[in-house]
Amino acid sequence: MAGHMAGHRAGHRPEREPRRRVTIADVARHAQVSTTAVSKVLRNAYGASPAMRDRVKAAIEELGYRPHAAARAMRGRTFTIGVLIPHVRNPFFADVLDGVGEQLGGSGYQAILVQGGSTDLAAESRAVEALIDRQVDGILMIAPITPKSRLEEVAGEMPLIVLGRHERSSAYDAVFDDDDAGTELVVRHLIELGHRRIGHISQRNAGRGKPVALPHLTRAETYRRVMTEHGLEGEIAIATTSWTEEGGYDGTRELLARSPRPTAIFAGADQAAFGALSALHEAGLSVPGDVSVAGYDNTRLAAMANISLTSVDQDGTLMGRTAARLLLERVEGRTAAMRFSVTPALVPRLSTGPAPGSGAGA
Amino acid sequence: MAGHMAGHRAGHRPEREPRRRVTIADVARHAQVSTTAVSKVLRNAYGASPAMRDRVKAAIEELGYRPHAAARAMRGRTFTIGVLIPHVRNPFFADVLDGVGEQLGGSGYQAILVQGGSTDLAAESRAVEALIDRQVDGILMIAPITPKSRLEEVAGEMPLIVLGRHERSSAYDAVFDDDDAGTELVVRHLIELGHRRIGHISQRNAGRGKPVALPHLTRAETYRRVMTEHGLEGEIAIATTSWTEEGGYDGTRELLARSPRPTAIFAGADQAAFGALSALHEAGLSVPGDVSVAGYDNTRLAAMANISLTSVDQDGTLMGRTAARLLLERVEGRTAAMRFSVTPALVPRLSTGPAPGSGAGA
Repeated sequence: MAGHMAGHRAGHRPEREPRRRVTIADVARHAQVSTTAVSKVLRNAYGASPAMRDRVKAAIEELGYRPHAAARAMRGRTFTIGVLIPHVRNPFFADVLDGVGEQLGGSGYQAILVQGGSTDLAAESRAVEALIDRQVDGILMIAPITPKSRLEEVAGEMPLIVLGRHERSSAYDAVFDDDDAGTELVVRHLIELGHRRIGHISQRNAGRGKPVALPHLTRAETYRRVMTEHGLEGEIAIATTSWTEEGGYDGTRELLARSPRPTAIFAGADQAAFGALSALHEAGLSVPGDVSVAGYDNTRLAAMANISLTSVDQDGTLMGRTAARLLLERVEGRTAAMRFSVTPALVPRLSTGPAPGSGAGA
Repeated sequence: MAGHMAGHRAGHRPEREPRRRVTIADVARHAQVSTTAVSKVLRNAYGASPAMRDRVKAAIEELGYRPHAAARAMRGRTFTIGVLIPHVRNPFFADVLDGVGEQLGGSGYQAILVQGGSTDLAAESRAVEALIDRQVDGILMIAPITPKSRLEEVAGEMPLIVLGRHERSSAYDAVFDDDDAGTELVVRHLIELGHRRIGHISQRNAGRGKPVALPHLTRAETYRRVMTEHGLEGEIAIATTSWTEEGGYDGTRELLARSPRPTAIFAGADQAAFGALSALHEAGLSVPGDVSVAGYDNTRLAAMANISLTSVDQDGTLMGRTAARLLLERVEGRTAAMRFSVTPALVPRLSTGPAPGSGAGA
């Protein structure tokens, strides 16, 4: 009877009538299964047959049941995961979020996001605390500033996945790109094209104390190593700004002020590479005729014909999907720490070419 | 004593010792004021002197007090606002979020975000319900699909600001761009440059039933009106895809297949214009020599020298700032509905020029 009533409401949706909240008991009755069975399906637990799963999902759909709200009352779970990203403006994070969304799709989990910035430890901390206060079931953090000790504290409060940092910890899972391998690919690519004066744009270290194991540090270190291995230690030139359009623009102006100027720029990230392209255009220099430019992240804009930016693909969508999968495993009870490293690939495009007068390349 | 203990802990931060949560009473004791005074400062209420404000804020800082968590227990407020956006990939939303962040800065409020997509009513609804379930104090929605009746239901549950929709309602505040004025500016700009065959890229209507009052409908309608007013009704050509890079690319290919092809494309949004530039480049056409391109949103990328896209500035940061201010006013008790419309401005750049053979322009 309750099931019938609820079905009636869902079908006609009168806007003004106050709705009684649909309960798990309503769903069980409607699907003609036990509440335990409904709960199993909601948790994606083993022991629920495909047929039962379909029946329960149909009942949930028909009644407009909201598992996260009811589940909170039932067993303390909110079916919400928290995601901390520095800023939505970086399209690489959009790729990561697409992967998270793909993995969560159909699981009944909803992701809520907070922005932590990337320069202010206090702001990043407040954002993390806001997530904890929202009673999420687990957290995925892209947190360039937070000290490792604080990450371990958070991991003590709830399941945690950390994306984009290389430290080892037994308290949380880590998902990251092999930044060393990716940087080696791109710097060698430029050297093979005959470039010797290859500049690099890096980021300032945010926060105080010992710098954490972040991609920009690994990329700068590998850039130095590969240059040195090819006898180019005298040509090392790093502009330290930020991986934004503005940072790439400023960093490129700084590198162009050198005499002689670089013939190639490894911008560290696509966002910075877009700023580099803009600065070079303004300076009347052609790409790649006068200066080659390479990014990192292989964002969608990099692939567009009028930009055609050589970049390194670290598959943000795969990283996001993996991070979400690991997080749900932890919510389900796994405690052993796991590390997942993406092997990056070079995607050469038209923004890199032979060094002027080098005779190298095609 | 409690104040001293808490201060000690905040100063030395021993990592392993479980921390007792700092309470509002601790803050009051530490600042040597009443708890009512602390509460006033937290609410930004009138009647708190600047000196008291400074004293309380210093105590909050020193003790590491987290107002939103404690306030929830104290008076039912969570000091969190929920923001629904379709997708983080659109840089216009990053501008809006920057404005929200600026307005909330220092208020003690934290924004949490959910993505609703822009094609699936069920996904958008689940995202809104997730925010309500997270017990936010108010919601800011950029919700292109949700029916107005559902917006009014949400507004019945909590303070609501709707961004980017033109409907009138007495239940919530609306913040939107004057899309009619903005579109008139850009279409007239192209006509004044001598263009007659001006194509337009629009979006499919998502959701079922009567289309809601969304920017893409207003922009398409105004495009038709201005073309007709200039005797160009026979040249109206609309490609209906989506306001993404992919949608702009596909829409441009569709428009280029017409014979004769358009000499100008008003892409409806910068994201779509980026895809248009890519498609034109691939087709071997020069911009603006063969085809002029204009966007809408004046995103940061539009301003970059190598892109230099003519666009319409609707000041997303101002919209975000205003929306957050209106939302906090509603949380504080305002119930009368307000509407705030941004007057857009044309930003002409190098992607638009005289129509081929028209003799118009500079």
